Amino acid sequence: MKNAYEQLTEHFRKVGDLSHVYSINAWDEAAMMPEGGGAARGQAMATLGVVIHEMQSSEKVGEWLDASSNLDLDEWQAANIREIRREYESVTCLPLDLVHATSLASSASEQAWRKCRANNDWQTMQPLLEEVVNLARQTAVVRSEKTGLSLYDALLETYEPGMRSKKVDQLFSGLKEFLPDFVGQVMEKQSKTPLLSLGNNFAIEKQRDLGIKVMGVIGFDFNHGRLDVSHHPFCGGVQQDVRITTRYTTENFVESLMAVIHETGHAMYEQGRPKGWEGQPVSVARSSGVHESQSLLMEMQAGRSPEFLKFLAPVIRANFEVSDVEPGWSDDNLHSLYTHVERGLIRVDADEATYPLHVVLRYEIEKALIGGEVEVADIPELWNTKMMQYLQRDTTGDYKDGCLQDVHWNAGLFGYFPTYTLGAMMAAQIFAAARRAMPDVMADLGQGDFSHLLGWLRENVHGKGSFYSVSDLLVSATGEDLNEAFFVDHLKKRYLG
Amino acid sequence: MKNAYEQLTEHFRKVGDLSHVYSINAWDEAAMMPEGGGAARGQAMATLGVVIHEMQSSEKVGEWLDASSNLDLDEWQAANIREIRREYESVTCLPLDLVHATSLASSASEQAWRKCRANNDWQTMQPLLEEVVNLARQTAVVRSEKTGLSLYDALLETYEPGMRSKKVDQLFSGLKEFLPDFVGQVMEKQSKTPLLSLGNNFAIEKQRDLGIKVMGVIGFDFNHGRLDVSHHPFCGGVQQDVRITTRYTTENFVESLMAVIHETGHAMYEQGRPKGWEGQPVSVARSSGVHESQSLLMEMQAGRSPEFLKFLAPVIRANFEVSDVEPGWSDDNLHSLYTHVERGLIRVDADEATYPLHVVLRYEIEKALIGGEVEVADIPELWNTKMMQYLQRDTTGDYKDGCLQDVHWNAGLFGYFPTYTLGAMMAAQIFAAARRAMPDVMADLGQGDFSHLLGWLRENVHGKGSFYSVSDLLVSATGEDLNEAFFVDHLKKRYLG
Repeated sequence: MKNAYEQLTEHFRKVGDLSHVYSINAWDEAAMMPEGGGAARGQAMATLGVVIHEMQSSEKVGEWLDASSNLDLDEWQAANIREIRREYESVTCLPLDLVHATSLASSASEQAWRKCRANNDWQTMQPLLEEVVNLARQTAVVRSEKTGLSLYDALLETYEPGMRSKKVDQLFSGLKEFLPDFVGQVMEKQSKTPLLSLGNNFAIEKQRDLGIKVMGVIGFDFNHGRLDVSHHPFCGGVQQDVRITTRYTTENFVESLMAVIHETGHAMYEQGRPKGWEGQPVSVARSSGVHESQSLLMEMQAGRSPEFLKFLAPVIRANFEVSDVEPGWSDDNLHSLYTHVERGLIRVDADEATYPLHVVLRYEIEKALIGGEVEVADIPELWNTKMMQYLQRDTTGDYKDGCLQDVHWNAGLFGYFPTYTLGAMMAAQIFAAARRAMPDVMADLGQGDFSHLLGWLRENVHGKGSFYSVSDLLVSATGEDLNEAFFVDHLKKRYLG
Repeated sequence: MKNAYEQLTEHFRKVGDLSHVYSINAWDEAAMMPEGGGAARGQAMATLGVVIHEMQSSEKVGEWLDASSNLDLDEWQAANIREIRREYESVTCLPLDLVHATSLASSASEQAWRKCRANNDWQTMQPLLEEVVNLARQTAVVRSEKTGLSLYDALLETYEPGMRSKKVDQLFSGLKEFLPDFVGQVMEKQSKTPLLSLGNNFAIEKQRDLGIKVMGVIGFDFNHGRLDVSHHPFCGGVQQDVRITTRYTTENFVESLMAVIHETGHAMYEQGRPKGWEGQPVSVARSSGVHESQSLLMEMQAGRSPEFLKFLAPVIRANFEVSDVEPGWSDDNLHSLYTHVERGLIRVDADEATYPLHVVLRYEIEKALIGGEVEVADIPELWNTKMMQYLQRDTTGDYKDGCLQDVHWNAGLFGYFPTYTLGAMMAAQIFAAARRAMPDVMADLGQGDFSHLLGWLRENVHGKGSFYSVSDLLVSATGEDLNEAFFVDHLKKRYLG
């Protein structure tokens, strides 16, 4: 007779199995599926999603959880129980009709968004988004009552457990003060070195070869993963078979390569999660912020470091069969291209110095939206005011590249945006700890040797799964809780040092 | 309140949705998955398989079926009920421990088979196969008691509903008489025209382009499907998104192209099945034999016809940028390559004239195995005797290219082999009916125009799903039940005409 803990783990192994199948279908939908398959796929995945949700929220889980409290469990098992309970309470606290209404409203809003964005059409978007916000507020009320958190924090908690807006405010306030002037200084400095073009004709097959090469350098295990193409780069699949994607344009390889390095950072986390815990909540990535920290650590901290770019430059030239005497292809110009800062309109195209300002803007608006202090109708004006304040860009009347540029809110994701910049801060803090622990690590990267860095990350981050809370994970890995100073220092050294 | 029929269809829509995600994972496993993902994938798909099986065999289905008998249903709904009942009885009649034991034994036997075949090792294979046969006999006993059919027929029924071994014996006896001598005559005739080689260096990308081109000519809808690569060519995916595969070697494009045409034939059936019946048993392909008839109709009847090969030859030459004055690339030699007959050891490499002899051999052995008239230990000698008799090839001591060449028996598939040749006979009979109905259809194929043929198949075969029994489908489409004369006539005209 299995005890309650064994029954729980058996149950979640099955949930993990079904999530595996779901995940591969989601990857296929983005990377392989012809458009005509979309309607049937959407329905098929929704049905599987309901089966998974029913298993996660089954009353038996609650009973096994209660019965597990008397068992003698080791610390990983106890952490697994803690995480199962956290998830169970999160999935069971919402009334099903609210979940269903949210799913319908966000689906309608997402689908309309594609057209509205293309047509710069805020009028059509507004009422659909209002419906999503209305339901998100109701969700926040239910979650807030259940958890005792504020409305916004109750949503933030679902992406970044343990994080509170009070702490985010504090972390972001330094950036709001520092970054706008800093960006100006960097642009001033960089304007003295003109950027040279690399040309605009790069065969996709060669870009792919380069991406594969660099993934191998970082340590991606191709026996347990693949690189493909999708409209937006992402990291999907499952721990044992991680599917990352990028996108290519023949005009430019600079972005596609860094997207590959970014997604490889996510992939290393997935490939390095605790083995033998398939489907168990304690084995999954700790939070959205920690996941982003691993992609940004590879892309921004390691990938754009002068040491690694020095290693990368000849690899790039060899890949495209050009010499460093050709205009633009010198080590220095490639370095400049990969560390160029400018005030853009679009978050996903932003460099690491301006990106947090895009995030702060969204965080402030969504927090006020959920708190009921502003309404959807106020968004365009708020957006414009904050864009002027933080990035000196006017978006009056430009919804397309203004407040309609992201799909997150239409999809019902409130509380997610701050995790991008929390991740950037964690990346700087974790990377600084790795450098302290391994004084030669930058020299290693200069040789294209990621083995020590990866080993350290495996031990201190990836292999911990959700064993620790986010705070405890950071304290364990870096000696202190999240602190924006590492990120600020990093920017100062890289761009004005 | 939904009535019983509506509840049934709602239930099977969900079964269809879960089968959709299962199917895409199966395709991914064969066409995309890195090897290291295999163990987790196997477990994930097994878990989903159990969920699907539980839904198919749920007691509620039995109750709804009973309650549906009083409802006023149209003829398609009634046919759907008939098919649901057939499947329900088929999945519920076996005790679960027998299903489970069969799954374990065939999995062990299949895995061992790969090594045993490579090592020409019958000794290791024999006891594992004995276990599978033992369980298949038990399955046959249960199914026989439930259906009143003979042991072998009770298994055959699961692949080819309505077909009986008495009828198969009768259909195959003509072939056994006719083919051995016929093959000799064809080889004698063909020996007078030497086959010229095409060279042995064909870029895979160009072979793929050619396959895509020919799929388009046949009418494959790329908005609802794809072409990829796998170890063995197959047709998978779902009706709305059909995934076919082929395999390439740079040494030869002849086989990869015909594999594409073969799988495209399967795909046209899938893409042409009744719309709006997702997951409903009445909408699926009628039988293994009918499915094979559609692939063989495209590959053998249409694809290797002199008319179509006349159209195809310049397409092939243009694709590989060669001219018809180069040795081997004339219309005539390409035609000879695509209609070459020889007595080979390997079923999957066989031409259409010798293929049925490989099937008859397997059918006779498996029927006797299930009937208990022979034992697994007798297989190698029986194989050799029959190979000598039908194809004049000695396989003494050659298990690899003898009785170990196919995985079917190891996988527990007994009653499947005859459907290959039943399909070939159906293909000839159906194609003959299409030619009678459309006197210009061969001229159309000579122009690369498949639209009329495809329209006729859609109306008479694909769009019927499982509305008719196999016999009724053939009578409806061709005017008579299955008759081997069309296949024999076809062979005579093509190879000795």
